[in-house]
Amino acid sequence: MKLLVHSGTIITMHNKKIIRQGAIAIEKDTIVEIGKTHELKRKYGRGYEKIDAKGKLIIPGFINTHQHAAMSLLRGYANDLPLKEWLEKWIWPIEKHMTSHDIYVGALLTAAESIMSGTTTVNTMYHYMPEENEAKAFAEAGLRGVVGHVCFSWRKKQDKKALEDLAKNWHNKADGLIRASVDPHSPYTVDPEYMKELKEIGKELNKKYGSEKAPIIWHIHAAETDDEPEKIRKAFKIQLKNGIMEYLDSLGFLDERVIAAHCVALTKRDIEIMKQRKVKVSHNPISNLKLASGISPVPKMLKKGITVSLGTDSPCSNNTADMFETMKTTAILHKGVNKNPTLTPAQQVLEMATIEGAKALSWEKEIGSIETGKKADLAIINLNKPHLCPLYNEASHLVYAAKAADVETVIINGKIVMENKKLTTLNVEKVMEMAEKTKNSLLERLARNVK
Amino acid sequence: MKLLVHSGTIITMHNKKIIRQGAIAIEKDTIVEIGKTHELKRKYGRGYEKIDAKGKLIIPGFINTHQHAAMSLLRGYANDLPLKEWLEKWIWPIEKHMTSHDIYVGALLTAAESIMSGTTTVNTMYHYMPEENEAKAFAEAGLRGVVGHVCFSWRKKQDKKALEDLAKNWHNKADGLIRASVDPHSPYTVDPEYMKELKEIGKELNKKYGSEKAPIIWHIHAAETDDEPEKIRKAFKIQLKNGIMEYLDSLGFLDERVIAAHCVALTKRDIEIMKQRKVKVSHNPISNLKLASGISPVPKMLKKGITVSLGTDSPCSNNTADMFETMKTTAILHKGVNKNPTLTPAQQVLEMATIEGAKALSWEKEIGSIETGKKADLAIINLNKPHLCPLYNEASHLVYAAKAADVETVIINGKIVMENKKLTTLNVEKVMEMAEKTKNSLLERLARNVK
Repeated sequence: MKLLVHSGTIITMHNKKIIRQGAIAIEKDTIVEIGKTHELKRKYGRGYEKIDAKGKLIIPGFINTHQHAAMSLLRGYANDLPLKEWLEKWIWPIEKHMTSHDIYVGALLTAAESIMSGTTTVNTMYHYMPEENEAKAFAEAGLRGVVGHVCFSWRKKQDKKALEDLAKNWHNKADGLIRASVDPHSPYTVDPEYMKELKEIGKELNKKYGSEKAPIIWHIHAAETDDEPEKIRKAFKIQLKNGIMEYLDSLGFLDERVIAAHCVALTKRDIEIMKQRKVKVSHNPISNLKLASGISPVPKMLKKGITVSLGTDSPCSNNTADMFETMKTTAILHKGVNKNPTLTPAQQVLEMATIEGAKALSWEKEIGSIETGKKADLAIINLNKPHLCPLYNEASHLVYAAKAADVETVIINGKIVMENKKLTTLNVEKVMEMAEKTKNSLLERLARNVK
Repeated sequence: MKLLVHSGTIITMHNKKIIRQGAIAIEKDTIVEIGKTHELKRKYGRGYEKIDAKGKLIIPGFINTHQHAAMSLLRGYANDLPLKEWLEKWIWPIEKHMTSHDIYVGALLTAAESIMSGTTTVNTMYHYMPEENEAKAFAEAGLRGVVGHVCFSWRKKQDKKALEDLAKNWHNKADGLIRASVDPHSPYTVDPEYMKELKEIGKELNKKYGSEKAPIIWHIHAAETDDEPEKIRKAFKIQLKNGIMEYLDSLGFLDERVIAAHCVALTKRDIEIMKQRKVKVSHNPISNLKLASGISPVPKMLKKGITVSLGTDSPCSNNTADMFETMKTTAILHKGVNKNPTLTPAQQVLEMATIEGAKALSWEKEIGSIETGKKADLAIINLNKPHLCPLYNEASHLVYAAKAADVETVIINGKIVMENKKLTTLNVEKVMEMAEKTKNSLLERLARNVK
């Protein structure tokens, strides 16, 4: 496909460069040139499909670095409960009944919601099943994603099979849209020996299916709550010397290919180790607040130069996949709790949602900013709304005022996946019908089992 | 006008009652009956305009209890700055150049944004000018509002004239849509004598223009930041014995007709006094976080039985007028900072945004819930969106997942002010044009003055 997006304001997220009256020429999946509209229009005329972005912003699509996409099926199923009750009485019992088809349907729904809100890449951790899975859903939706398989001590054999299948069949597949990851659930559900083994398995899989350019990464929940050391002590009779990161480092798990979600309960030493090992962070402020986990020391990590990206977490603990909400919450939360209004300014938060997200997934050579040679992952935002009027500063509007519904057109890997708010890859009505049906069937199976 | 809204799920916000397949009959400005669709359709047939709300939620419109509507003109003008610099170098200098027409235009823009996001009542505090003002803008938009004039020690004479004019010309006017309020800016900008005088002025105005049913209320910023006692000491050489509320109470200012915005920095004694005097609270979590003011002890006030409502604050410190964002932020913030996921559950937050808002404005006999005999102020929300799918619980979806753009139709005072996302009272394109033009002219006048 040959495409020219023109006449818009391009927020490149590369060296803070903004191009007004800008145009982007795309060939196949790649951005081939960026410049002024009057110049590019002459050069890329015949044979190039045109998208007029007059009065609109063109941004690199958002990169949501922590999701459990299939869990959209449980959106609003249970809220406002103590964590233990929420998990043990509500979430885990119903999840046991989820089939591979349910996971596929949930991921389709999240893919639709993500694209419609300007997200072009999603990092998701869930149970991988060969029959149907999140990778299949993302590939069908045309959504870029890192798809992981979540590993637990109690199912090592099953995990290893799943990881092999996932890496073999999906890593760097679907025109390079999908990558695989190895996902130890957490330091308290994966024993130390298995954690080491999962590191090794990831390395082996990288040798077989990965490359320097397209690596298989590790994705883990870490330091989500204060009581994680206590959980580790209970599960494995290990008394931590310092924090969670020091513990993970002692197992040789940490390096620049690890993305750790949450990072709420960190020691000073943890942060030092993260910097040293170049661990990447996915900050999930909405989920952390809603589940009452606490508040991640994001300004401290940023000051240290650690890569902090943004995630929504699952639609079951958020309850949306909306990166605009996550950006705004990030920008205001750290100001408020630190009583410092200069922290996490708009431009920095926008970076966290785009280029820093790409770095967090070891994918920054191809995505995260609008640059010649990078993949064409773009969102076009309509500014002609009362809540975006008047306009002084684009970054401010994107972080503090814009909303998911302002996204009009989305391009992923050079393909138009949403045009004028209409998905081109999915029948959204049908996806919603499937999700409602799947929910009802899940509830039925749950009820029968309980009886 | 005679209207039948039918076939929807009615979230009445009255005794937590939900009516499925529900209908609401409206005559003139009033709800005359609520019931099942098949019954009301027979009764209210010919002569009743019909609105089909199939698959949709019908809720009482949101009540935004703290705004400075005109300040939408400064949306995104300055962010991420230390408070003193933000106010003194950015906001105050440009505000000096605002004309009555600018104020009217800003309020029109906020009215459009408010209605489009499901808000039917706005409590706004700004400079009242007889020529053009926020009341005129709200009345034209068909938006219900309490419009105040903000008072400062340095302009007592001007304030008194403005208050008399406001009360005389706007209180309980525009078919009862508009009410007036007396708004001392804050305890540190209004000296103690003037604070007492403003209480008396309000009482006098109530005798002349108010009534038990439609009172003129008092609206004040209070305890917004920790340093407010210090500001009072500097301004008036008064050393507070305890907190801000005790101080205001010592001046005889507090009673059930007072709505205090922010209430962040409260002492235990302050909260006791607020309970005793039945002071109403407007909680503004987004503004409080963004300006780094801190976090209001909302769970403590709620536990005490104090009426806590929700406000967005001005679009200059938020930067939207979106009550969905404010509900979600409220619901998650207090869980997170108190590490208790059961605090501020969805149903309670929905009450804060509707019926508690009505109480906060002493307007609960007419608005805030869907009840026979109350004014018809409704918002109809389309659930047929990926981010609202599947559906388990309506309150959860409204607070945690729904967005401004899901609001389709809005009725205020029995009049359809937005139908299928199109405003009927305002030309939104023209309002946005006016706002952009006003902004440019403001910046020009500011620049000329600086030179």
